[in-house]
Amino acid sequence: MTKLSYKYLSNINSPDDLKKIDKSQLHVVCQELRDFIIDEVSKSPGHLGSNLGAIELTVALHYVFNTPYDRIVWDVGHQAYAHKVLTGRRDVFHTNRKLNGISGFPKIEESEFDAFGVGHASTSISAALGMAVAAKMRGEDRKVVAVIGDGAMTGGLAFEGLNNTSMDKNDMLIILNDNQMAIDPIKGGFTQYLVDITTSRTYNKIRYRFSNFIMKVFSLDEERKNKIIRFNNSLKTALTQKEHNIFEGLNIRYFGPVDGHDVENLIRILSEIKNFKGPKVLHVITKKGKGYEPAEKSVTVWHAPGKFDPETGERLVGNNGIQEPPLFQDVFGETLLELAKVNEKIIGVTPAMPSGCSMTIMQREIPERVFDVGIAEGHAVTFSAGLAKEGMVPFCNIYSSFMQRAYDNVIHDVALQKLPVIMCLDRAGIVGSDGATHQGQFDLAYMRCIPNLTIAAPRNEMELRNLMYTAQLPGKGAFVIRYPRGKGFNLDWHNEWQEQPIGKGECLKEGSNFAVVTIGTMAAPAEKAINQLENDTGLSIAHYDARFLKPLDEELFHEICKKFTKIVTVEDGTIEGGFGSAALEFVSDNNYSVDVNRLGIPDEFIEHGLPKELYAQLGLDADGLYKSFKKVAGSQ
Amino acid sequence: MTKLSYKYLSNINSPDDLKKIDKSQLHVVCQELRDFIIDEVSKSPGHLGSNLGAIELTVALHYVFNTPYDRIVWDVGHQAYAHKVLTGRRDVFHTNRKLNGISGFPKIEESEFDAFGVGHASTSISAALGMAVAAKMRGEDRKVVAVIGDGAMTGGLAFEGLNNTSMDKNDMLIILNDNQMAIDPIKGGFTQYLVDITTSRTYNKIRYRFSNFIMKVFSLDEERKNKIIRFNNSLKTALTQKEHNIFEGLNIRYFGPVDGHDVENLIRILSEIKNFKGPKVLHVITKKGKGYEPAEKSVTVWHAPGKFDPETGERLVGNNGIQEPPLFQDVFGETLLELAKVNEKIIGVTPAMPSGCSMTIMQREIPERVFDVGIAEGHAVTFSAGLAKEGMVPFCNIYSSFMQRAYDNVIHDVALQKLPVIMCLDRAGIVGSDGATHQGQFDLAYMRCIPNLTIAAPRNEMELRNLMYTAQLPGKGAFVIRYPRGKGFNLDWHNEWQEQPIGKGECLKEGSNFAVVTIGTMAAPAEKAINQLENDTGLSIAHYDARFLKPLDEELFHEICKKFTKIVTVEDGTIEGGFGSAALEFVSDNNYSVDVNRLGIPDEFIEHGLPKELYAQLGLDADGLYKSFKKVAGSQ
Repeated sequence: MTKLSYKYLSNINSPDDLKKIDKSQLHVVCQELRDFIIDEVSKSPGHLGSNLGAIELTVALHYVFNTPYDRIVWDVGHQAYAHKVLTGRRDVFHTNRKLNGISGFPKIEESEFDAFGVGHASTSISAALGMAVAAKMRGEDRKVVAVIGDGAMTGGLAFEGLNNTSMDKNDMLIILNDNQMAIDPIKGGFTQYLVDITTSRTYNKIRYRFSNFIMKVFSLDEERKNKIIRFNNSLKTALTQKEHNIFEGLNIRYFGPVDGHDVENLIRILSEIKNFKGPKVLHVITKKGKGYEPAEKSVTVWHAPGKFDPETGERLVGNNGIQEPPLFQDVFGETLLELAKVNEKIIGVTPAMPSGCSMTIMQREIPERVFDVGIAEGHAVTFSAGLAKEGMVPFCNIYSSFMQRAYDNVIHDVALQKLPVIMCLDRAGIVGSDGATHQGQFDLAYMRCIPNLTIAAPRNEMELRNLMYTAQLPGKGAFVIRYPRGKGFNLDWHNEWQEQPIGKGECLKEGSNFAVVTIGTMAAPAEKAINQLENDTGLSIAHYDARFLKPLDEELFHEICKKFTKIVTVEDGTIEGGFGSAALEFVSDNNYSVDVNRLGIPDEFIEHGLPKELYAQLGLDADGLYKSFKKVAGSQ
Repeated sequence: MTKLSYKYLSNINSPDDLKKIDKSQLHVVCQELRDFIIDEVSKSPGHLGSNLGAIELTVALHYVFNTPYDRIVWDVGHQAYAHKVLTGRRDVFHTNRKLNGISGFPKIEESEFDAFGVGHASTSISAALGMAVAAKMRGEDRKVVAVIGDGAMTGGLAFEGLNNTSMDKNDMLIILNDNQMAIDPIKGGFTQYLVDITTSRTYNKIRYRFSNFIMKVFSLDEERKNKIIRFNNSLKTALTQKEHNIFEGLNIRYFGPVDGHDVENLIRILSEIKNFKGPKVLHVITKKGKGYEPAEKSVTVWHAPGKFDPETGERLVGNNGIQEPPLFQDVFGETLLELAKVNEKIIGVTPAMPSGCSMTIMQREIPERVFDVGIAEGHAVTFSAGLAKEGMVPFCNIYSSFMQRAYDNVIHDVALQKLPVIMCLDRAGIVGSDGATHQGQFDLAYMRCIPNLTIAAPRNEMELRNLMYTAQLPGKGAFVIRYPRGKGFNLDWHNEWQEQPIGKGECLKEGSNFAVVTIGTMAAPAEKAINQLENDTGLSIAHYDARFLKPLDEELFHEICKKFTKIVTVEDGTIEGGFGSAALEFVSDNNYSVDVNRLGIPDEFIEHGLPKELYAQLGLDADGLYKSFKKVAGSQ
């Protein structure tokens, strides 16, 4: 595709530039933003659907509000591309999500326009409320706007925020960006509730006439505005049988629903309500993928489509016909289905990530035994605990960094009660382009300190299958299986399941100089590094796979400690309290005189980039491990 | 008080015995239960107010439902005393919350009648939903009832549960036990919402007549029942302007409100709705402390009053006039107020625990700068992050075990953005009678693996003051201060604040044989043990206070490692990845040949008992440490 040229966009370097454009021309700006984002994302993969859906809203917000003095807090943050482009990051947008480039999410450090950093869902109302309360206390006439999707509204944190919104003096505006969609179609009563609101016809007709009336009246004083709103509200109650307005129930004024793709109308409405006192919600209806036909049609696929041809809408997934190893996600999904066919007590539970974790494979065949609970990680785990208490065998799949949101549920509901919930942590280790919010770098450490858990990390696809098979056998208790995002290693991975003895690792390779002990998929780069180093130096290096973080294979570790004076541990998790520390504790508790070199992710947040780039930076790819191993050998 | 005698209660050893009693006599059973619980709790401290409030409800539930086949899931669990007494635990009730006695909360292992263990709030709907879905799948005609207070309803997890309730086939009954109270008066829009429901007069009159009508009709078929309910619902909508029924908005049938102290009426209603298909809510109005005048009058004090004279209502707080060291809670509270008077940016944030953590001290004087956000730990932290982003200085006080519920908020909203939120973890270490759900044993481990945090534990009251002072100075970043429940050590604790250098510990005592390194208040028993051991053996033992878990005082540790070949670390947290592991990592990373003996809480959940009993059991009191130190000395 040739470089696009833009009448307006090329000259917009800040919201001030945007504000110079006549309102009647803003739809052109929106079209240009749409073209720009489609063009950029087609070349540099990122989130598409939600970004296209939020374009008019973004233009309207920056047109009406005085950013960065006024604060816009984006929930989740995967709808902030237009915001980034309009706030001085157009020319660096091609670095989006790339190593050392701009982040795919809002980030305080990146721009003063990014009022609050994000990546996980449902935080915006709480954060914005803090900011609005602070503004009030400091006597600043600052407006604070939280923009939250209907998907993120299913998270309990959003409800906690809502419940507190009317409690204190603040003028916060919450924009409910309602596209009836998380990454996957969202579930639960709240969604139905929004559908009920928006589909009540009489209600909408009246509201439409009514909002037209309001919008025509410009110089209203506060009291008159309030009267109109009150009338408006009682109208709603009187007119809509199915109307149960949660927001107003929580003392938050409700406006809408309005068309989120009519930029001029959005500007009129925002200008009108922006100075209303007290907390308020504007309910905006948008369409994910708006303005790009393929993305409108197939929302889940186009949430983050990878590279594609913007003209034809063809996704460039091509691998040139070469057969490749499967994604760990698909190994999980297919194995879950296979197991579920044999063990009818197996239930799949996922908080809004059925496609991401490939639970869709089971969902398609046995939908009645798969529960997509929406963005609600805490509920996913406690719900699973309830299922397990009654003899079912739940596989609760949650991304490693999202499991941080269900930490107490793991401790208080699962581990303490020794309930056999199988918690599969997808996206463990470095996830790549999503960056610091999404890296699965803490799970080994935060899970290890919880009693009664079995924690395992498969080395490859076959081990994942074996561990899943093992975990669902009777009497195995609470079980954590963590594995990375992305491809495995084997074309032929459909092994017959084999029970994996709990707490048993394995010697992968004998050696005499020192021992490398890996956990999970770090075995692969370690193996490569060992082979190379042996070839280059004549050293003889042993390689063990611990497989279980907990319980640690004590027999194996005794063997290692008796044989070697130096151990190198390798993990794709933080070295503060992780697997290497478990090895250290073992050595110390058993009074061995063995040096333990812990290789893993240092004590810092890891920004975005390709996993291979990040692992290289961290010295955790084959080259980096080679160097570390060599250093260990040299110090002998 | 003389031993009470009971006409009915003495013969009730199971719900089957209860069911034999005529309905008309159940109010006597309730009175006996009330007398029994008041008598027991006056002698063995426990929760009183919420237990007295739930007596009629408990009797009605066990009368109507077929427990333990049917499941009752109590939320929080501090209202389950009547349940315990009725289910075979009357004669052991005097062991309530005592070492090796019964737990103050429901516990799966204790009784088949305890359907789901608990201690933290807001889990019941999710757990019960799992159980109800499981029953449906297994084809069992089991009823599942979740009993949740209005306080616990403010927790996001409860909303996540509600949002999923109508999603799947289940006949769950949720009882909303509405006493307009958590431990402290609860806050937020949801409370106001419940008040609105219950105070709408026209609405209630009509409902009353209507429910009378329903209750008179007994042999209704399902269809007729449904019709009546639908009419009933539309009535509500038509009649109550202020009615915005969240439950029905979420497709959950709503019944009530009904008087929660009319046991016969409760039985009639429960019998009627128990067989209705689909999820439903029964809204029950109760009074905390019901039937015991002092407890009705002063709800917060009588939530867990300690020992008291049941006849006079006089609380036996007597210390015989001896002046005692302050509670750490009060040191926190008073210091917070003092600091807040000087630094006007300081804000207090607490999730429903203003009295528990003594933030009431600041609340009384500067109410506009204290935010009790309800049971909503995640919101408390993210709200604090928003405040900090805008230049305020939030002290967010959360009990150690409850902070598990805000883990991702600490990582994603505070640490990642380096926002200067001061997180005070009260109830760190062993808390005692509340038992396994409440012990603050994991915080050192789960916080240590988070980058960008400063984590400190004061040795005594003065250090707590110094750390609080230090944390609120500019540029200190995200700061964790953890301290235990209960009394400090000094009568004269009102020291002048002193800035505490970050990451600096202290040598408390020189020595030559080996070094003891403690963190936080474990310094006290360690000091005692050291003195005794030196007296008994002539050994010379050094004692260091690490003070900071993160950053570790590397200078001090270098000094220690150069001087000693043996270190003993002592902490009141898990030894899996905690402070001792940090010391081990330091020793290993710096290639010292030093033995590290880690003393702390083993890798298991610690049940209830007095803290001194539990510390003794764990070998973490002065006697236990003495033995451990002696062993270390002997192995030299």
